Amino acid sequence: MRYLEDVVVGQRFEGGPITVDTDEMLAFARRYDPQPFHTDAEAGARSLFGGLAASGWLTAALTMRMVVGTGIDLAWGVLGRQVETLEWPRPVFAGDTLRVTTEVIEVRPSRSRPDRGMIRTRCETFNQHGELVQSFTSLLIVPSRAIEAKAG
Amino acid sequence: MRYLEDVVVGQRFEGGPITVDTDEMLAFARRYDPQPFHTDAEAGARSLFGGLAASGWLTAALTMRMVVGTGIDLAWGVLGRQVETLEWPRPVFAGDTLRVTTEVIEVRPSRSRPDRGMIRTRCETFNQHGELVQSFTSLLIVPSRAIEAKAG
Repeated sequence: MRYLEDVVVGQRFEGGPITVDTDEMLAFARRYDPQPFHTDAEAGARSLFGGLAASGWLTAALTMRMVVGTGIDLAWGVLGRQVETLEWPRPVFAGDTLRVTTEVIEVRPSRSRPDRGMIRTRCETFNQHGELVQSFTSLLIVPSRAIEAKAG
Repeated sequence: MRYLEDVVVGQRFEGGPITVDTDEMLAFARRYDPQPFHTDAEAGARSLFGGLAASGWLTAALTMRMVVGTGIDLAWGVLGRQVETLEWPRPVFAGDTLRVTTEVIEVRPSRSRPDRGMIRTRCETFNQHGELVQSFTSLLIVPSRAIEAKAG
């Protein structure tokens, strides 16, 4: 388990792959993002996406699944306080195989609460061609080893 | 259908309600965010959330569902280019009833492409107590009436 003291700028964690399943993509879209370009192949082909595209929120959810499996192993889990600048530069299609890279870009102990701090990570999701399909940075809450010392 | 020329700063669209279903919350967490505080009641109670909390990505997905139903009716649909500063200030629990408010905060024609522009919206999700559980701003791509003129 990683505490704040174990996290260092530049650490990278790789996750995936996950292949996007047509049935899951359609079921997700019907429930959460029921717009024709996400639920109907012809409408998708006529849209800016040029095909039946996954909801960006499915890409985000699949990315979370991959991040949890990367071995980042933060002591309180992957506990997001804020996501900054979430972008989808290219569409995701059924059958695409996604991978994720998470890199630590900042480690910031809390001034007011010595039991925790924040880390900022940059998270990038790529398709099977190595093209970026999603990116964001996020602030995660990470406990300090002070918490363990107190419990011990 | 709304084109760029029909969108005005200050327009507000209300969506929802959706009540968060326990089974859906658990199924979503097991598939997309399999961390103990999202999948196990005891682990949730011991976590910072103080209870079995929904994945923030489920809150985002349910919010999208409500936004699509608000009557915002953009001609190309709700087509997100970027989400900025997505935050979850309070946890969402099973049985919570969510509502969403979307407000237009900027309208920006494209300089290089006269057939479209961007609008910036602020999207806030509230629980049944009127407490903010999620907020973000987003840039949406909206076609201009120039496109209709060209087609006609």
